[in-house]
Amino acid sequence: MPTSASTPPVCVLGLGLIGGSLLRAAVAAGREAWGYNRSSEPVEAARADGFDASTDLPATLRRAAECDALVVVAVPVPAVGAVLTAVAEHAPHVALTDVVSVKSQVAALVAAHGLSARFVGGHPMAGTAESGWSAGFAELFRDAVWVVTVDDGTDPDVWTQVADLALDCGSVVVPAESGEHDAAVARVSHLPHLLAEALALSGAAGGDLALGLAAGSFRDGTRVAGTTPTLVDAMCEGNAPALLTALDETLEVLRVAREQLADGSTAELTAAGHAARRRFEQRNRRPVTGVVPGDEDWLARLREAGRRGEVWTR
Amino acid sequence: MPTSASTPPVCVLGLGLIGGSLLRAAVAAGREAWGYNRSSEPVEAARADGFDASTDLPATLRRAAECDALVVVAVPVPAVGAVLTAVAEHAPHVALTDVVSVKSQVAALVAAHGLSARFVGGHPMAGTAESGWSAGFAELFRDAVWVVTVDDGTDPDVWTQVADLALDCGSVVVPAESGEHDAAVARVSHLPHLLAEALALSGAAGGDLALGLAAGSFRDGTRVAGTTPTLVDAMCEGNAPALLTALDETLEVLRVAREQLADGSTAELTAAGHAARRRFEQRNRRPVTGVVPGDEDWLARLREAGRRGEVWTR
Repeated sequence: MPTSASTPPVCVLGLGLIGGSLLRAAVAAGREAWGYNRSSEPVEAARADGFDASTDLPATLRRAAECDALVVVAVPVPAVGAVLTAVAEHAPHVALTDVVSVKSQVAALVAAHGLSARFVGGHPMAGTAESGWSAGFAELFRDAVWVVTVDDGTDPDVWTQVADLALDCGSVVVPAESGEHDAAVARVSHLPHLLAEALALSGAAGGDLALGLAAGSFRDGTRVAGTTPTLVDAMCEGNAPALLTALDETLEVLRVAREQLADGSTAELTAAGHAARRRFEQRNRRPVTGVVPGDEDWLARLREAGRRGEVWTR
Repeated sequence: MPTSASTPPVCVLGLGLIGGSLLRAAVAAGREAWGYNRSSEPVEAARADGFDASTDLPATLRRAAECDALVVVAVPVPAVGAVLTAVAEHAPHVALTDVVSVKSQVAALVAAHGLSARFVGGHPMAGTAESGWSAGFAELFRDAVWVVTVDDGTDPDVWTQVADLALDCGSVVVPAESGEHDAAVARVSHLPHLLAEALALSGAAGGDLALGLAAGSFRDGTRVAGTTPTLVDAMCEGNAPALLTALDETLEVLRVAREQLADGSTAELTAAGHAARRRFEQRNRRPVTGVVPGDEDWLARLREAGRRGEVWTR
């Protein structure tokens, strides 16, 4: 099937919640797409649902190389290295992206496998409490933020392919350098988990009386402590350097607040925190304008646009 | 109107959100009830809505004394002292309760005004982001937890009157000693605000990129940072000793977690936090059984029941 430069076929490696949803979304968007999974159960389930899937990684990758497909790494972090080894062997020149959380970690693995030239990192910030092929659905990415990395040396054609795939899936594309992405998600995705766990512990330390008096503020503040611990560990430990920075800043904010409370006032913390929450509520997503991938300074200009909260549109 | 011992008329001092809702709820439950407010606007609004209200505090209290009404202090903390002064002058022997948050603070003021003998503290854990008479409604307390204090020396008849008022308003009654209540709400109501403010600050420190990547965990974790800062200050500063204890514990939990994360693992924190959240989710409210107010050890037994998460029913 002939495809335009920016809408090549899509080859999804890993058919869990994210990869399985991506395969569905790509097909729903009219893209040619197929998937691979190491274990056979998701592959059989995908086939039963009418999708093109295989447990044969070399064959899957050779097909991707022949079609110049966009290959999407959608396996859990511990499996990324093995998958990249296979890519380097069977499809070393394909356009490559991923949907794994921590971007500098994946970029380092890609570089170690000699695959950086046509790699662009991705992170669709979507998910549910469920996992596996059966939990996936094509609309998972609708209106989600999908970060597409703009690190030095990024190939503009591959960047456009990855951004187009994200847009095809209904997402909002935010350009960000890998390290800046990791620092940002440490603040807004990983730190919230640590604070929720700590708050849950404080409530439980108050016994059944305290838990019985807990209402909306405790319920909301501890909601993500309901996430399976191993999933939280994988997120937090994978982004440890950036998360330590964010946590240290927050410990200092709370230490200062503690001294001010001991002196009788929380006014400085609550005024600043309220203003920060208002800024979050009032954020808006202006489109990036005037940047063409491949033009001079396009990467620096996309980074700056992402820092301003702007989003890439077609 | 003749009333039974436990359903005397209700006199509400202060017609803001809580007091105004309480006046409506008492009337809706078939109780004789009237209210007072210092400023005339809420009084006029209450009258226009068909309620019995006055700006004359001495007359309101003399009426309460004549009817042996249950008097409910529902003014903001800074006004409690002045209202108690008037109670001591015009109705020194009425049954007295309050609906103000921090219970040891109010109990100390009541003692300073010589009114402890027929005082039982109360705290309906209900509210909205709105305030004032116009924001109130009779159903505000439906299914909310209403703490009724069981401090040493509590009069069993007054205790029953206060618990019956809470039940008439549709609330769930939890018996707790004032200091234990304050320690519990520090953990589950006040600490959540401080952590939400700190999390909001961490997100904003990441700029528009971080705020643009923020999703559910950040939104939920910072929700109560949207509360008006002066309201949060009043809650936290009024309960400073208990909140400092809870905050110091949490700072230590986070400090230990920080060291473990630096060593590569968050598993201890996430396992414990997840178990704590599950305990919160799975709490249930068994009724207190076998305790009659006034019987031997009734206060100690109600305290123990409250610590077990049990609730008082009629």
